[in-house]
Amino acid sequence: MRDMFHEELEGINTSLLGMAALVKEALDQSCIALTTADLAIAERVIAADDTIDHTQHDLDARIINLMARQQPVASDLRALVTALRISADLERMGDLAHHIAKLARMRYPNNAVPELLETTIKNMSSASARIMEKMVTVLQYRDLTRALEIEQDDDEMDKLHRLLISTLLGDEWTHGIETAIDMTLLGRYFERFADHAVSISHRVYFLVTGEYANGER
Amino acid sequence: MRDMFHEELEGINTSLLGMAALVKEALDQSCIALTTADLAIAERVIAADDTIDHTQHDLDARIINLMARQQPVASDLRALVTALRISADLERMGDLAHHIAKLARMRYPNNAVPELLETTIKNMSSASARIMEKMVTVLQYRDLTRALEIEQDDDEMDKLHRLLISTLLGDEWTHGIETAIDMTLLGRYFERFADHAVSISHRVYFLVTGEYANGER
Repeated sequence: MRDMFHEELEGINTSLLGMAALVKEALDQSCIALTTADLAIAERVIAADDTIDHTQHDLDARIINLMARQQPVASDLRALVTALRISADLERMGDLAHHIAKLARMRYPNNAVPELLETTIKNMSSASARIMEKMVTVLQYRDLTRALEIEQDDDEMDKLHRLLISTLLGDEWTHGIETAIDMTLLGRYFERFADHAVSISHRVYFLVTGEYANGER
Repeated sequence: MRDMFHEELEGINTSLLGMAALVKEALDQSCIALTTADLAIAERVIAADDTIDHTQHDLDARIINLMARQQPVASDLRALVTALRISADLERMGDLAHHIAKLARMRYPNNAVPELLETTIKNMSSASARIMEKMVTVLQYRDLTRALEIEQDDDEMDKLHRLLISTLLGDEWTHGIETAIDMTLLGRYFERFADHAVSISHRVYFLVTGEYANGER
């Protein structure tokens, strides 16, 4: 039978998963808004960011409250500190989805992404969706194989990011500076999104094994 | 007489200040490297990022250890959680200084910043140095007046950022896409740097007053 502390910890993990689901939804929808120039969807993602922020706020309050009441030590304390850090990563990932949606809104009714970069950006969307899906699995099942796999997806994201920049610098780029600025920032949002997902996976890896995953101190 | 817990907490706050000093130095030096195309300085900032990361790592371990040993509640617990969050902000600010130094190194022996943007970037450097100085005062003396002032400096940074983008889009811009990409990312680094400083100031404000500073939930 589980004691009170572990029941509450499980509740916190469930809420973290719920928050991850909100972020996943925000990312998926912001990518749709971006690639189809859908203003209504963009607006919904932008409005939903408040929900993510509130969720983090409530979750953090619960975590700190549990720390204060139950005075956990060792692995229980580490689990709570990790939960705080993961919620901060997720909140930031929500912000990045929000930025993507704002770019779609800013360029509406035009498509923010020029045809020349359509495939690259779609591939970046898919890579981030894949990363997000694995990250949720890592969170839900403490799946360490997936935790390590995410790094390969992150490498793929970095490759796509380099391809994006080289397209901006290539002879075929005829869309001028403004769109180049948009695409530079968009590339950065996707890249940072993946970084946070990797960071969450590493945190779970460390929590479970007490060791650092590849490439992380 | 102070008890053991508060002595250790004071030690942690001193270490946070030390970490802030490292980040301040990294920022100052990266701005010099950037505006004078000084490779040696850029290399030093890049190498020093490891020190900042190690400092965070050790500091976080001490904070968690203190939590486990002393089982603080209420404001003492909040102080430790806040310290964890501030160290995460500082670590990220160190990364941003590192990115600025890497840009200087990448474009060496050329100056990464074209003449047309020299003043704007120098003003962004000064704004971030000013923000950093105030943030250190907030951390050191729990100076709430400075904590609120930082928001005005952040507004100034946002204005400079908009000026930067409008320069990139103006007729006078003749430096092409590559430099526009560099400047877009550089502007983003400065902006994010300021955001983290604001976030740290808000955390201190909340810790001292139990209330949120303007504009923050």
